[in-house]
Amino acid sequence: AIVDWLTDQLIQQTPDLPLAHQRVLVTAGGTREALDPVRYISNRSSGKMGYAVAQAAREMGADVTLISATRNLPVPTGVKVVYVQSAADLLAQVSTEFPTTDLLVMAAAVSDYRPVQSATEKIKKPADHADLTLQLTETPDILKRLAPQKTHQYVIGFAAETQHLMTNAQRKLTSKKLDLLVANDVSKPGVGFNGDTNQVTLLQPNQAPIKTALLSKIEIARTILTTAVAAGAVQA
Amino acid sequence: AIVDWLTDQLIQQTPDLPLAHQRVLVTAGGTREALDPVRYISNRSSGKMGYAVAQAAREMGADVTLISATRNLPVPTGVKVVYVQSAADLLAQVSTEFPTTDLLVMAAAVSDYRPVQSATEKIKKPADHADLTLQLTETPDILKRLAPQKTHQYVIGFAAETQHLMTNAQRKLTSKKLDLLVANDVSKPGVGFNGDTNQVTLLQPNQAPIKTALLSKIEIARTILTTAVAAGAVQA
Repeated sequence: AIVDWLTDQLIQQTPDLPLAHQRVLVTAGGTREALDPVRYISNRSSGKMGYAVAQAAREMGADVTLISATRNLPVPTGVKVVYVQSAADLLAQVSTEFPTTDLLVMAAAVSDYRPVQSATEKIKKPADHADLTLQLTETPDILKRLAPQKTHQYVIGFAAETQHLMTNAQRKLTSKKLDLLVANDVSKPGVGFNGDTNQVTLLQPNQAPIKTALLSKIEIARTILTTAVAAGAVQA
Repeated sequence: AIVDWLTDQLIQQTPDLPLAHQRVLVTAGGTREALDPVRYISNRSSGKMGYAVAQAAREMGADVTLISATRNLPVPTGVKVVYVQSAADLLAQVSTEFPTTDLLVMAAAVSDYRPVQSATEKIKKPADHADLTLQLTETPDILKRLAPQKTHQYVIGFAAETQHLMTNAQRKLTSKKLDLLVANDVSKPGVGFNGDTNQVTLLQPNQAPIKTALLSKIEIARTILTTAVAAGAVQA
């Protein structure tokens, strides 16, 4: 802990780090949409990739806020954290922080559907053991909502797919007006959810895709941020 | 770690502990039912109560196996663990272990519904942003399935409710032929999911309910097991 504290003091006093004076906002983890007070719909995101980005941004000198949909991971030293549950909570927090953010990294796996109704008491099994029908509706698309509010912000998104990765990722880069998109094929071994390694492809508008090796998540995080800095994420 | 190891050696060599030579099977955590390779339905169980029961049973001298639907918690020293995902996985594991189990503690929050179909690839949003309908069907009721296979086993179940707790708990005790049921009202502060404290009511056939104080989960676990031993869970 003392080593973490000393490291953090050193970061604060090193003026020429690549993200010095930059406000970096990172979202992480899988949001949860309640069916009732007990049950929810979520996804397999562990939050590890987002936490690694927050740590890497801090090491590169940034002022980092992490909006986290998971509570299971240790918060990197020197990083502020705000915990959220649902896609709506996450949208509210990101919207508040966005105007004063320089670099947004949307690593959270935001639920794209939520139950139309969320029961206030635990739903009991019907006595006749009948099947249940659940009506789901789309959640707000956070990156699309933020796009018109962009002034100077550099925005990084993620795409996790099990097929047609490059087609889906390229579409997302364009439709959400992203500066950088991190695409990963979560059906491959060692890639994506819950592991400590990842292999990704970095897409930028009008640039050839950059494919990384299979690396630890902190190394992937450093590669993402270094690529963003090289592409002009930090304005003079 | 060395202290844990020494403690465990001591437990193994102390013959008169209350659960010596007993095979205890504990289930813990909330099972997950996949919608597709990314999304799932689950519940707010952290697994902490089940892990506390496993630890308490080990401290009382038992040979403990933990069937865990969560991977986020440290496994107590001397306890064997098997990880599972869905209600069907959990049923398969419990069924295998049940014949050689002396005391079963079903602390897992087993999903009672699963999607009728689980997609093999990530479901994409429909282009027209329409609502989705999800068809859910009941999962197998593990305690009901095990009831006819009971020979000498002492079986402890849990009920987490937000209303009509005692009515629902009493019905569960009877319908599932439990020896002991641990009822908790998860809508109360400090009770149930994710916290480190709990307050429960212990129900047994033909006995007055026993209500505990608000205690740490390890103290609740010891109370549950001590009550089971006092009620004759360990056969001579």
